[in-house]
Amino acid sequence: MRMRKKKWAEPFIDAHPDRIYRDPSEYKGKWHQLLDTSTIRLEIGCGKGGYSRQMALLYPEDGYIGLEKDVSAAAVSARKVEEDERPYPKLRYIVNQAANLRLWFAKEEVDIIHLNFSDPWPKKGEHKRRLSSKQFLEMYDEILRPEGMILMKTDNVSLFEDSVVSFMEYGFEMVKISVDYRRDEHDDPITEYEEKFLALHQPIYFVCVKKRNCDTIEV
Amino acid sequence: MRMRKKKWAEPFIDAHPDRIYRDPSEYKGKWHQLLDTSTIRLEIGCGKGGYSRQMALLYPEDGYIGLEKDVSAAAVSARKVEEDERPYPKLRYIVNQAANLRLWFAKEEVDIIHLNFSDPWPKKGEHKRRLSSKQFLEMYDEILRPEGMILMKTDNVSLFEDSVVSFMEYGFEMVKISVDYRRDEHDDPITEYEEKFLALHQPIYFVCVKKRNCDTIEV
Repeated sequence: MRMRKKKWAEPFIDAHPDRIYRDPSEYKGKWHQLLDTSTIRLEIGCGKGGYSRQMALLYPEDGYIGLEKDVSAAAVSARKVEEDERPYPKLRYIVNQAANLRLWFAKEEVDIIHLNFSDPWPKKGEHKRRLSSKQFLEMYDEILRPEGMILMKTDNVSLFEDSVVSFMEYGFEMVKISVDYRRDEHDDPITEYEEKFLALHQPIYFVCVKKRNCDTIEV
Repeated sequence: MRMRKKKWAEPFIDAHPDRIYRDPSEYKGKWHQLLDTSTIRLEIGCGKGGYSRQMALLYPEDGYIGLEKDVSAAAVSARKVEEDERPYPKLRYIVNQAANLRLWFAKEEVDIIHLNFSDPWPKKGEHKRRLSSKQFLEMYDEILRPEGMILMKTDNVSLFEDSVVSFMEYGFEMVKISVDYRRDEHDDPITEYEEKFLALHQPIYFVCVKKRNCDTIEV
């Protein structure tokens, strides 16, 4: 969701270079070290960061990086963290485009990718912009470690169905699929955005896929 | 669904040996020839045969074999066909258990398998009885031709989710998935059973998978 432009966003980002990066190329290959963790989670399209903050509290040992192209939304994410009395030592944001992932992450550097309520790009001609289109899967495949996972949640039927086929066609392995994710209890945080769908009794779709371990050669 | 036992069922089956078979082992490897067709469709668990009759009319060139273990349901299927003024020349039924598929179908003899609203066997200990469990997938894999397809429809969330994972784990290829199959128009016939769910605005789940072509060796 596009949000209204906030005037304070750019200066805030410049004032917090250790929380939110415009181009963190210098950390490529060094994220585990920087965040002192064995697990790097990367959320692509983190919006205003509600999910990332809750995840950082839920998994304090894991590094969490939220990527968001919308400057105002990314700034809101970072400001909410800075204004919180809790420290969030392993949570960072990147304000930039997902197309540049390779600039910031080395091969096999990421453990888990989160895609939450991504833009469905409903028009046929725009499908290749979806975060589950082949061009993005090639990037995820490159930056994910072997057996690293992609976890996707969405309310959008068409995005979900096409993404599942896209993951399978690309060669990711299916780990779990749910056509009504919230019918069971999960630790997984519920954002304000998701809350709206749940209030309307609309199902949330979920799929988890795994990168093949290339040591295992199939014939 | 189990139906009340019908006294006329057994005699009816015995009286129509060219429409409904108890054990068609003699046709193993000869179905395309028997039904004079290039395409053999096999529905496993055809119930009272509503879907099979509509399919036979919709695809008059295809051979269609409905398998049903419930004697009364299978007899209803065959009787409805016999009582119809239309001839249904390529439609047959088998009254027997799916576990015996290998007795009646040769390797790669079937083109398309249909699984419609199969028994969900909800208890954990019974999951292996599901028609999408590994033991059945091994049989389907054997009797399906390369690139032959399995089309599954169900209203049952848990059966659907587990079946999708089961198909993928087994190594079938995902062709299409839908979490609300009836939101688009399809030729695919709607049975009375399915109509009930649609009237309640409950989604029908659909997945189509394809048997890998073994000529293509993956490394």
